Amino acid sequence: MEPRFPGEPLGLIAGGGRLPRIVAETAMARGFTPIVVRIADAIDDDWDGFVGGYFAWGRTGDAVRFMKASGVSRVVTCGTVSRRPDFRSILPSFRTLIMLPTAFRVVRGGDDRLLRNVAAFLKAEGLEPVAVQDVAPQLLAPHGPIAGRRPEAAEDKALFLALRVAQTLGSLDVGQAVVASQERVIALEAAEGTRDMLHRVADLKTRGRIGRGERLVLVKAVKPQQDERFDLPSIGVSTIREAESAGIGAIGVTAGKSLIIDYEALVAAAGEAEIAVVGLAGGDVGQTAAAPHHSDALGEGSS
Amino acid sequence: MEPRFPGEPLGLIAGGGRLPRIVAETAMARGFTPIVVRIADAIDDDWDGFVGGYFAWGRTGDAVRFMKASGVSRVVTCGTVSRRPDFRSILPSFRTLIMLPTAFRVVRGGDDRLLRNVAAFLKAEGLEPVAVQDVAPQLLAPHGPIAGRRPEAAEDKALFLALRVAQTLGSLDVGQAVVASQERVIALEAAEGTRDMLHRVADLKTRGRIGRGERLVLVKAVKPQQDERFDLPSIGVSTIREAESAGIGAIGVTAGKSLIIDYEALVAAAGEAEIAVVGLAGGDVGQTAAAPHHSDALGEGSS
Repeated sequence: MEPRFPGEPLGLIAGGGRLPRIVAETAMARGFTPIVVRIADAIDDDWDGFVGGYFAWGRTGDAVRFMKASGVSRVVTCGTVSRRPDFRSILPSFRTLIMLPTAFRVVRGGDDRLLRNVAAFLKAEGLEPVAVQDVAPQLLAPHGPIAGRRPEAAEDKALFLALRVAQTLGSLDVGQAVVASQERVIALEAAEGTRDMLHRVADLKTRGRIGRGERLVLVKAVKPQQDERFDLPSIGVSTIREAESAGIGAIGVTAGKSLIIDYEALVAAAGEAEIAVVGLAGGDVGQTAAAPHHSDALGEGSS
Repeated sequence: MEPRFPGEPLGLIAGGGRLPRIVAETAMARGFTPIVVRIADAIDDDWDGFVGGYFAWGRTGDAVRFMKASGVSRVVTCGTVSRRPDFRSILPSFRTLIMLPTAFRVVRGGDDRLLRNVAAFLKAEGLEPVAVQDVAPQLLAPHGPIAGRRPEAAEDKALFLALRVAQTLGSLDVGQAVVASQERVIALEAAEGTRDMLHRVADLKTRGRIGRGERLVLVKAVKPQQDERFDLPSIGVSTIREAESAGIGAIGVTAGKSLIIDYEALVAAAGEAEIAVVGLAGGDVGQTAAAPHHSDALGEGSS
């Protein structure tokens, strides 16, 4: 996606984590002027040198007005929203009051749906939502090996079991993440989110509920939905660390439909943790062999 | 199932909980002589007046020999096995050593698979496994209202969503339990077990991750499998209590393929907790709008 004119203001609704900063820097490099609306977890993040500010949930209306006043027509939304807005503490502006029913819906159901619903909300406000991969296509996961070592045979078996289950869950519009071994499904993500699910797996391991011979893998798969563009699963260094403490040896993401956050750091962390990270294609389900090995697979994600 | 001769010895491999005692008393009333092999959680249970004893995992061989010496040809296995055998503390007999590989496999994967695999193990030992419902068919859940109040419209919608998801999971041989609201799936059981899943839901509620308008329900569905006879989901008073503390208003089980443990006590607990308990048939999924509608506004979920 290119600027419509040099320095086109690009709205960036930024939650927490590394992703918003990466998107902002990519946008600048491509000739956009990011207008940064920090929300939720981004309250303490340092965005010096960027135009913008932090907006509490009660100031949703002000945030929209601020972006419009800054000449924004297109808006990208990303980042984590782990803190829930405390609506009791809100002194909403009149404009926000009108939006509150939407705001409540937006918050319902955790990060993924929140970001998806923000897109619908922006449309209703006359702003054009654009996806992270439109601004930063280089973040899309390639097909095949991504980082760390190659999966072993047992891990390949587990990856394809987890992918099959994850896609079935996705078709029911349930969570995106599954932990499996080569023998069975260990954990399924629903409303609790991937991090909580990985903590659960670590706990099961501690309690000896996972067999010594079981090789654990994590698969994050995209939901086959209209609005998947605004709901791509993502992995980053924190995913590697959480997977490591859960005893997970391999991570699979849907190629071309997942975001790799902070690639260099992820490669380093995966190497350190000796975790295999691979991009899986839907067609991989049913295969028994390892994911295809292209040495230059990294370029393909953006195609 | 009737005794082949008056006082036929019936092997009862008893884990913890109320179920084994109920099965033993039913068996006696029908003219069997229960031979009680207590395992796992049953270590401290009072079984005075019944023939049998407690057997540690290392004495699996002795337990089989004891049943055979008592004239047992048919064996029913039930009860909870939440404690994992500590194989380091085992001083196995020679006969048990031969079985240990099986024993390990049996323990893998938590209660359900354990009880299922015990059946296969008994067959291999020349004993005939019989299902709880063969001995005590009165425990099978009926179709329709079972206990407590009737489900409200929003809970009906949630029940059908949860049943649809639970059956899909079952077809993938994953867990049996699902928590849903009228709008979305909240939690999916895999290796952690129903109790841990309900604790998770309570935690999500505490953290405000569940909307005020969401009416939560729990569905335990049987897996469509050959050996489902030895793996029926069950609910009892403890299920009601755990559901209550998770903020769940209705519980659905698969009619004719789930066990109601301690019916009178469950009715009392469900009435007290104002929880609806219903028996669902597979065909029920077709009824009503089972599809989730995430974009529903607050409160409209029941429409």
